[in-house]
Amino acid sequence: MAKNPKQSKTLPIYILNGPNLNLLGHREPEVYGTTTLAQIEAMCAAQAKSHGLAIVFRQSNREGEIVDHLQEARTSGSAVIINPAGYGHTSIAILDSIQALQLPVIEVHLSNIHRREPYRNHSYVSKGATGIVMGLGAQGYLRAVDAVAEILKVKT
Amino acid sequence: MAKNPKQSKTLPIYILNGPNLNLLGHREPEVYGTTTLAQIEAMCAAQAKSHGLAIVFRQSNREGEIVDHLQEARTSGSAVIINPAGYGHTSIAILDSIQALQLPVIEVHLSNIHRREPYRNHSYVSKGATGIVMGLGAQGYLRAVDAVAEILKVKT
Amino acid sequence: MAKNPKQSKTLPIYILNGPNLNLLGHREPEVYGTTTLAQIEAMCAAQAKSHGLAIVFRQSNREGEIVDHLQEARTSGSAVIINPAGYGHTSIAILDSIQALQLPVIEVHLSNIHRREPYRNHSYVSKGATGIVMGLGAQGYLRAVDAVAEILKVKT
Amino acid sequence: MAKNPKQSKTLPIYILNGPNLNLLGHREPEVYGTTTLAQIEAMCAAQAKSHGLAIVFRQSNREGEIVDHLQEARTSGSAVIINPAGYGHTSIAILDSIQALQLPVIEVHLSNIHRREPYRNHSYVSKGATGIVMGLGAQGYLRAVDAVAEILKVKT
Amino acid sequence: MAKNPKQSKTLPIYILNGPNLNLLGHREPEVYGTTTLAQIEAMCAAQAKSHGLAIVFRQSNREGEIVDHLQEARTSGSAVIINPAGYGHTSIAILDSIQALQLPVIEVHLSNIHRREPYRNHSYVSKGATGIVMGLGAQGYLRAVDAVAEILKVKT
Amino acid sequence: MAKNPKQSKTLPIYILNGPNLNLLGHREPEVYGTTTLAQIEAMCAAQAKSHGLAIVFRQSNREGEIVDHLQEARTSGSAVIINPAGYGHTSIAILDSIQALQLPVIEVHLSNIHRREPYRNHSYVSKGATGIVMGLGAQGYLRAVDAVAEILKVKT
Amino acid sequence: MAKNPKQSKTLPIYILNGPNLNLLGHREPEVYGTTTLAQIEAMCAAQAKSHGLAIVFRQSNREGEIVDHLQEARTSGSAVIINPAGYGHTSIAILDSIQALQLPVIEVHLSNIHRREPYRNHSYVSKGATGIVMGLGAQGYLRAVDAVAEILKVKT
Amino acid sequence: MAKNPKQSKTLPIYILNGPNLNLLGHREPEVYGTTTLAQIEAMCAAQAKSHGLAIVFRQSNREGEIVDHLQEARTSGSAVIINPAGYGHTSIAILDSIQALQLPVIEVHLSNIHRREPYRNHSYVSKGATGIVMGLGAQGYLRAVDAVAEILKVKT
Amino acid sequence: MAKNPKQSKTLPIYILNGPNLNLLGHREPEVYGTTTLAQIEAMCAAQAKSHGLAIVFRQSNREGEIVDHLQEARTSGSAVIINPAGYGHTSIAILDSIQALQLPVIEVHLSNIHRREPYRNHSYVSKGATGIVMGLGAQGYLRAVDAVAEILKVKT
Amino acid sequence: MAKNPKQSKTLPIYILNGPNLNLLGHREPEVYGTTTLAQIEAMCAAQAKSHGLAIVFRQSNREGEIVDHLQEARTSGSAVIINPAGYGHTSIAILDSIQALQLPVIEVHLSNIHRREPYRNHSYVSKGATGIVMGLGAQGYLRAVDAVAEILKVKT
Amino acid sequence: MAKNPKQSKTLPIYILNGPNLNLLGHREPEVYGTTTLAQIEAMCAAQAKSHGLAIVFRQSNREGEIVDHLQEARTSGSAVIINPAGYGHTSIAILDSIQALQLPVIEVHLSNIHRREPYRNHSYVSKGATGIVMGLGAQGYLRAVDAVAEILKVKT
Amino acid sequence: MAKNPKQSKTLPIYILNGPNLNLLGHREPEVYGTTTLAQIEAMCAAQAKSHGLAIVFRQSNREGEIVDHLQEARTSGSAVIINPAGYGHTSIAILDSIQALQLPVIEVHLSNIHRREPYRNHSYVSKGATGIVMGLGAQGYLRAVDAVAEILKVKT
Repeated sequence: MAKNPKQSKTLPIYILNGPNLNLLGHREPEVYGTTTLAQIEAMCAAQAKSHGLAIVFRQSNREGEIVDHLQEARTSGSAVIINPAGYGHTSIAILDSIQALQLPVIEVHLSNIHRREPYRNHSYVSKGATGIVMGLGAQGYLRAVDAVAEILKVKT
Repeated sequence: MAKNPKQSKTLPIYILNGPNLNLLGHREPEVYGTTTLAQIEAMCAAQAKSHGLAIVFRQSNREGEIVDHLQEARTSGSAVIINPAGYGHTSIAILDSIQALQLPVIEVHLSNIHRREPYRNHSYVSKGATGIVMGLGAQGYLRAVDAVAEILKVKT
Repeated sequence: MAKNPKQSKTLPIYILNGPNLNLLGHREPEVYGTTTLAQIEAMCAAQAKSHGLAIVFRQSNREGEIVDHLQEARTSGSAVIINPAGYGHTSIAILDSIQALQLPVIEVHLSNIHRREPYRNHSYVSKGATGIVMGLGAQGYLRAVDAVAEILKVKT
Repeated sequence: MAKNPKQSKTLPIYILNGPNLNLLGHREPEVYGTTTLAQIEAMCAAQAKSHGLAIVFRQSNREGEIVDHLQEARTSGSAVIINPAGYGHTSIAILDSIQALQLPVIEVHLSNIHRREPYRNHSYVSKGATGIVMGLGAQGYLRAVDAVAEILKVKT
Repeated sequence: MAKNPKQSKTLPIYILNGPNLNLLGHREPEVYGTTTLAQIEAMCAAQAKSHGLAIVFRQSNREGEIVDHLQEARTSGSAVIINPAGYGHTSIAILDSIQALQLPVIEVHLSNIHRREPYRNHSYVSKGATGIVMGLGAQGYLRAVDAVAEILKVKT
Repeated sequence: MAKNPKQSKTLPIYILNGPNLNLLGHREPEVYGTTTLAQIEAMCAAQAKSHGLAIVFRQSNREGEIVDHLQEARTSGSAVIINPAGYGHTSIAILDSIQALQLPVIEVHLSNIHRREPYRNHSYVSKGATGIVMGLGAQGYLRAVDAVAEILKVKT
Repeated sequence: MAKNPKQSKTLPIYILNGPNLNLLGHREPEVYGTTTLAQIEAMCAAQAKSHGLAIVFRQSNREGEIVDHLQEARTSGSAVIINPAGYGHTSIAILDSIQALQLPVIEVHLSNIHRREPYRNHSYVSKGATGIVMGLGAQGYLRAVDAVAEILKVKT
Repeated sequence: MAKNPKQSKTLPIYILNGPNLNLLGHREPEVYGTTTLAQIEAMCAAQAKSHGLAIVFRQSNREGEIVDHLQEARTSGSAVIINPAGYGHTSIAILDSIQALQLPVIEVHLSNIHRREPYRNHSYVSKGATGIVMGLGAQGYLRAVDAVAEILKVKT
Repeated sequence: MAKNPKQSKTLPIYILNGPNLNLLGHREPEVYGTTTLAQIEAMCAAQAKSHGLAIVFRQSNREGEIVDHLQEARTSGSAVIINPAGYGHTSIAILDSIQALQLPVIEVHLSNIHRREPYRNHSYVSKGATGIVMGLGAQGYLRAVDAVAEILKVKT
Repeated sequence: MAKNPKQSKTLPIYILNGPNLNLLGHREPEVYGTTTLAQIEAMCAAQAKSHGLAIVFRQSNREGEIVDHLQEARTSGSAVIINPAGYGHTSIAILDSIQALQLPVIEVHLSNIHRREPYRNHSYVSKGATGIVMGLGAQGYLRAVDAVAEILKVKT
Repeated sequence: MAKNPKQSKTLPIYILNGPNLNLLGHREPEVYGTTTLAQIEAMCAAQAKSHGLAIVFRQSNREGEIVDHLQEARTSGSAVIINPAGYGHTSIAILDSIQALQLPVIEVHLSNIHRREPYRNHSYVSKGATGIVMGLGAQGYLRAVDAVAEILKVKT
Repeated sequence: MAKNPKQSKTLPIYILNGPNLNLLGHREPEVYGTTTLAQIEAMCAAQAKSHGLAIVFRQSNREGEIVDHLQEARTSGSAVIINPAGYGHTSIAILDSIQALQLPVIEVHLSNIHRREPYRNHSYVSKGATGIVMGLGAQGYLRAVDAVAEILKVKT
């Protein structure tokens, strides 16, 4: 671990969101619920704060931009929580960025991808993640924040 | 269908084009013909006009930008015609954007992808499309415009 | 192209329909709509007439009979529109007949076969077709007639 | 269920037999037994009669003719028992006909197809059948007649 | 056949039921019906009695216990009817026990496993069964009892 | 072998041809050559005669009709030479008919199917054939006639 | 949901552990850590208590016993947390028991199974789970307890 | 290696046998020979004694019980010889128990599983075994005892 | 074709035989017959002579030596008949040598490889052969000689 | 080749680098070495200059931007050297851009992708590349520059 | 068994070794140990002698030479022990030679091939071997000699 | 690295060529060019000399001989450049020899094997090679010589 663990805990958690997640709450609310991404951001900030941590929260529809954000987290973050959405199933570039991180990485999916279409059962991101939380809806982000807090506490 | 169908018919058809289609007419004309994308745009506009419809015509080499355009069409368009080119075979992000649309979507391919290399025989976009038109060259766009016009007429 | 293109345009378009399509309109109307095959025939004849073209319209439950009809079209038709239904997924004999044609061939499916069961995602006929139109319901036949008319016009 | 269940019970059970079953009793009797198809027909008629039911019994070597018979059963029969023989493994057209029926369908195989060559382990017909009886030799037809009688009785 | 066939007919039919079948009638009754396993046992006993036969009826959630029961049937039973439930798809140990039997074995499934999830389409037990009856609900047990009675009668 | 081998040699060789072979010589002569099926029939008759044998020569576009012809050969022929064309790749019904024959069967293909598209590399008929001759064009039929003559001579 | 949600919240959470988990802390501590299963039980009980919830904690090396425990949870529990260990990859019987539950089910794995051998990348249990938490070591149980508490709170 | 190698050699070799092996000598003797499992136990005890070693010999039809026995061997045995029978092909739980052992493990199969049905060609146990002996019938156990004796001797 | 076809006809036919064919007649005569390879050579020489042709006849157990012989045939032969035996299924080196030939090549197999084990169903040599003759036993060589004679005659 | 070969040699070589390559030298130096991308650029420029050639050197984390750069190279470059990094395994859009080039294209990978994870063994870019150089670390770029220089020299 | 079993026991055991085994002891001793092939030969000769048997010990890097040696063993040996090394995974020619033997054949591998790369998990030789011993290092040869001695003793 | 790196640099580079490469320049010159293998040898010797290095240049049609040459290089060479031709796709024996080398190994292919038939897309040799150069024709050898020179220089 290149960075000083203690110092890295004072850095924010990067919470990155993939394509189409900006539509949350607006799109098929009977399926995805009425919670918007802005509300998830607020929930995550509060949960992190309760652990004495800060967050950086981003959404992007572009694979390359997510790579950029992961590279930024590499030097400016203490951990990464990523919901890669559709790119989780297809992006080795994002996996490579994650594997270049020397930080805890939690992959989050709102739905349980193993109960969906076969082409959604596989995630390249999982190959690089420390841990995975899925199927818990918006709550999954909070459990990931808790997990990161616990991992960072252990490192001290 | 969230939007008022009548109103949505007064919105333009989004015609979206994927990577490398900007080279049409310039690249291997003996294979792809000499019709440029600008000419296809003009043909589509005329054909749509003959049905009393307007179009928005875009091309992008970037997967994330096509996701943006699909999200724009979600609120500002009456239907989508998409030639995803190379991204049709690999992009679940674009499929997700299409599935979040509540509009008719016609997938167009200039060539018949089932007569090409095995890795071109499959399109994720097809999983989300209402209908598919392929192998008809530039004419395929016009048939897709006709199809959309017919579908919108039925909805009234 | 062995036949004189000009002459071939005065020959009728063969519109061939595979097994169980005679049940259209009677079978699961909530799925397949209430349009009967006779109505589709009438619609196609009118659309072809609007392009100055005639049609021959056939339906058969028998693979070998469809082969016979394709061989007949080879000498007596200007183009073929074929909805192979269940035989599209399994018949190399029909594909061989199509590849022996020297005419434009448009494959039509009422539904989008890529949104159905895996064993319906593949069509041998596609390997021999000029173009494909699917997912547009009965309208798909009309778009195929338009496509054939355009292709024959270009050939003159 | 479109037809009046009571009425449909007064209609005969269609018992359809696929290719090469006309050779039963004559072909490799050490494997397939010495019971002929005519004897099976007589056994089935007697068993059906014991339940107060009539049968129509057909054999055909032709896929399309079996489709025709299934379509006939759709309007003139109360249930279908089908031994598709070789076409069970390859015919989506027959599956489509079965799925268009709104009747109980029992698939029968003389042998247990799962103990035979790999290409005989799969049956498309099974995807459309209500129930399956296999490996019981000629007796399988009688068990299928019993099953149909029970199903029709429950429906009243 | 090691045992005297005549004698073996005076031995009971073993009817073995795999995991979760004890929940029948209580679990998702809209799917699996309201008939309980106790009722199926009573129905089977009556049906066997009508053929002059007795039954032993067991249910177990444990793969190894089912192996034990099959070994017991080997010496104390005249035939086996087995609904392996979830173990049918995964247990070679049960298949081995069945192949060590020298008795008629009928595999029963309440539902038609070929219309369910792909991982339920295959049954190892089928490789060892004499015959298979599926998709007929509780009635399937009765048809299996009839089949066994017929097979034992022929053996005399 | 049920029939008297000596007698069976006085019966004709059945030479059966599958779908689209009636187009030979007319269809893509640059690929398939200019020899017609009638000429092949004449060549075969002459070659058989040189061995003191007669032939029955048939062509059919229908799978079920080919099954009928094979069943006819079963009682009226001494051997079968079959070019199944497109049905070779897909027909288990024809394979079943061949396996019910108790005669020598030579499968012939004009082209070498292993140098063609992947879906043509496999033939079900091969599973039932005594021998296979392919890639020799029309000459292949003559070599098959020679092979049959030799096999029948050995049997005497 | 058959049980009264309010009442079900007063029932304990069943936390079930599969084969070899009794070795935790003793087996390859450099890989699996030094936390024992008894310590995990204590941690879970404390965490549940902090949410006003009780737990039942079990471990079994036997697939059928786990089925029994799941059936017990069906009537006596408010939710299930299950670490199926090796049975997750192979047991459809356990999946069936889970699908018969009408309770929230969280699947937990200590390690991230997608970073291990290919045969560990797939879990049948995932097909039935509400949510999944993996790769977080012993902490994963606590996050699952939190998740269950949140789900039960929402239900009130 | 956690245990003192010298001491572990004074511990017995665990010889574990999977489902249906209790039938050895009684079941299909023409295939599996007439040697019973009790005779194999006696042979193994004698062979071990000749090396100055003792054995514990177990058979179980239950996967979970075999896991228990393997865990017992972990602390009370010097080595394991296991004939997993049907569970070898399907049990990751047993593989996990083996991988948690820090002892030599020899997998034995009476038959050569690579000459049997495809679903018997693969053994999960092989992934964890030190060595494998198969196809030698009852003798295979003796060769495994010899191998263990040699391995333990080297360790001193 | 680099060589003068007329001249090449005066060159001998190379008949090459792969590994283990030297055992013909000695090995499992009930399976492979009692004809030895020396007898096949004599038969081939006589048959070739009847067409006015000479032969070179070789056998080798070594893949590389067969490559050498094929290269020799390239300059010194008029055609090649090859029974690659076991190397047919595995050798791309031999396929490459064949594709470098500019001569007719007939692949011969004594047995019908499609009725044998799956790993014998595929031959790389077939990808390079002009024609294939299999399943005719020793006679197959004679039919291949006839075929070569006919092909060379046409070339004149 | 549309452009004048002589002229095209005066155009620069485009050296394009895919996602995460900007981290070279900083990320896991024990694996990827300490050479930075800037140093590679300098080395390439010097090597090209030694051949009298200039370079354009780019890096991008975005698939679409790489497509743009390839299109620019199409008109402004003499050749392309591309290290597609993670996009090589997944991008058909980049392959399409390469196939639209009429220039020499050398694919470079720092590591030997065939010695890495299975999902890295395949590169779509390879389908369009003239040549491939991999496994040579930073030196691979220099060898690619040499190769391009040689190819351009030959063209003059 | 063609040869007189008694006599065959006076013939030597052929112990054949495949490619690269001549490097044993010299190559990666930390992996393969320091025992040389010459030492293994000496150990085998001594072990065979203890059973009153002689050996012939060979090593070859050439597939065809191993075929020759197997053919020699066919007439001059009593049994074969073969470590095919790399050819075990790829050689059907060697398998054919083994299947032509009428002798006991034991396949030996120094390592457990099921714990290595996927392409080493399969051995064609296993399809022809009587028994298999693997993962025991040099000791495996001794266990194979013991096994052969036992098999030959039983035959007397 | 067992040998003294300095010393090993004074040893020659072994350049090994697989089957059929002796035909280069003579065989299909329009495809493979007119450069002969002797010319390639001369080019390589000159290029090596420019780096102060010597070469040993071999060609063999025999897999086992190539294994011998690789073993020779192991003690007498400083590096290996190998064009395995057809054996690259099928030979694990050659891969084993390469993995036993402790030298740099560059795999060379004249053509880009990923643009050829599917069975040529895979090379076992790649699993053992340090680096790969393909698709550059004869020039590829020179680039490989350059690469080896660079690698050896770095080692000093």
